[in-house]
Amino acid sequence: MLLPPMLAAGWTQRRRTRPSARRYFDAVWERRRARCFYKVLSNRESGGEATAIIVYRLPWTWKCSKLLMKFIHAGLNTIAMILAIVSLVAVFDFHNAKNIPNMYSLHSWIGLTAVILYSLQLVLGFAVFLLPFAPVSLRASLMPIHIYSGLLIFVTVIATAFMGFTEKLLFALKNYKASPPEGIFVNTLGLLILIFGALVLWMATRPQWKRPPEQNSKLQQPNGGTEDSAMTDCSKAEKADVEFNSEAAARKRNLKLDETGQRSTM
Amino acid sequence: MLLPPMLAAGWTQRRRTRPSARRYFDAVWERRRARCFYKVLSNRESGGEATAIIVYRLPWTWKCSKLLMKFIHAGLNTIAMILAIVSLVAVFDFHNAKNIPNMYSLHSWIGLTAVILYSLQLVLGFAVFLLPFAPVSLRASLMPIHIYSGLLIFVTVIATAFMGFTEKLLFALKNYKASPPEGIFVNTLGLLILIFGALVLWMATRPQWKRPPEQNSKLQQPNGGTEDSAMTDCSKAEKADVEFNSEAAARKRNLKLDETGQRSTM
Repeated sequence: MLLPPMLAAGWTQRRRTRPSARRYFDAVWERRRARCFYKVLSNRESGGEATAIIVYRLPWTWKCSKLLMKFIHAGLNTIAMILAIVSLVAVFDFHNAKNIPNMYSLHSWIGLTAVILYSLQLVLGFAVFLLPFAPVSLRASLMPIHIYSGLLIFVTVIATAFMGFTEKLLFALKNYKASPPEGIFVNTLGLLILIFGALVLWMATRPQWKRPPEQNSKLQQPNGGTEDSAMTDCSKAEKADVEFNSEAAARKRNLKLDETGQRSTM
Repeated sequence: MLLPPMLAAGWTQRRRTRPSARRYFDAVWERRRARCFYKVLSNRESGGEATAIIVYRLPWTWKCSKLLMKFIHAGLNTIAMILAIVSLVAVFDFHNAKNIPNMYSLHSWIGLTAVILYSLQLVLGFAVFLLPFAPVSLRASLMPIHIYSGLLIFVTVIATAFMGFTEKLLFALKNYKASPPEGIFVNTLGLLILIFGALVLWMATRPQWKRPPEQNSKLQQPNGGTEDSAMTDCSKAEKADVEFNSEAAARKRNLKLDETGQRSTM
């Protein structure tokens, strides 16, 4: 998610009129740095968010302790949030340096909405699911909202990126309507991001890829037992591989049967 | 979903230089008509698609026969598809009349992808779920893909609309960066569409709002019995209201318990 937008930014940049040497070494350099920061960080943010979303859905992580996976999930989201804040500061700095008004576009409105929702999601997630104080009933009632909000924020971020691409292409390419190679390149990048988002959503919504809850139940209770808690890295659970694989296959079979029973009414 | 975009289009139009009377009565009129067609129809399309998505999720429709609901679902999607095709023809006509190249923007690429996926979804949906030839096992295995694709196409259409708004605002408003009332209006419309999409996705993904499968099972089998099939309108099933409501409450309780059991491992 990082390299292509950087290439795209560099590519579209080439066609613009080059500034004089003097300007290059003062204001323009600052502006370019800010713009580069913004693009790189905001794309790293969506990549980090996507990884955080699917981290529970990778079958080879099922043998790791739930607590470890929760720390990885929270850590990735925290990194993505920090990058989002830094990129917001960069884009405001860039606008101020160029005397461009802030928050005038739909891109900025939807984007800021996504960042606000993301920060709320992060704070609530920490308070309810990571700290050991929330009762199980509260976690149970908030978990569907947490999952739904995470996916909603993810698709909103992708929509924001699409609007950003559209703005950038219209601002930077004077001959965009003639489909120059830069335009084709960024459009292709947009399609690839759409496919990427579709794959993440598919992985995040398949019931058979849901992490099995049975194995580490003691560990996950607030202030739970310490015996199972020792399994905080994946290496200690290698022996459980076969059991997990057979369990996953059994769950898949059961889901298939359930689904058939349910869908026989279609 | 229809009125606000029309207002927005009219509002942004006002600030443009008015053409002479002669031009008004030939080419400009054609162009405006094509543009109006495109906007109205493409917004009707997303509205129709949303209604089709949630039609099974409205509890008061659970007392109607499944076959009737399937016809309504398919009918709404067919209308939306027809509107999408007409709006595509209108926008190509508009581009050709103004000598604007077709298919140069990310908006058009993502939009055409959505329309192609939508038509595939419609054809497959008809063949597998409406016609009585597909075996139950095929329906069961394709249903999760059908639901996922429908929601994916829906969010893709919304992202396409956002890009369309961005393009329109940048093309039509020369002072867009100064946040004119038209810009604020369309940005607000974008936020409302985001909320609308979020609500539709929420309704479409809550398990407790899923249509109960038990009542009309005989009807739904391919070439099934005729006794239950007689219940093809809602009025004949009024008596089942209390049963359905109590069943929905029971399902909600069961889901809550399941969820608690599952999430106790968090």
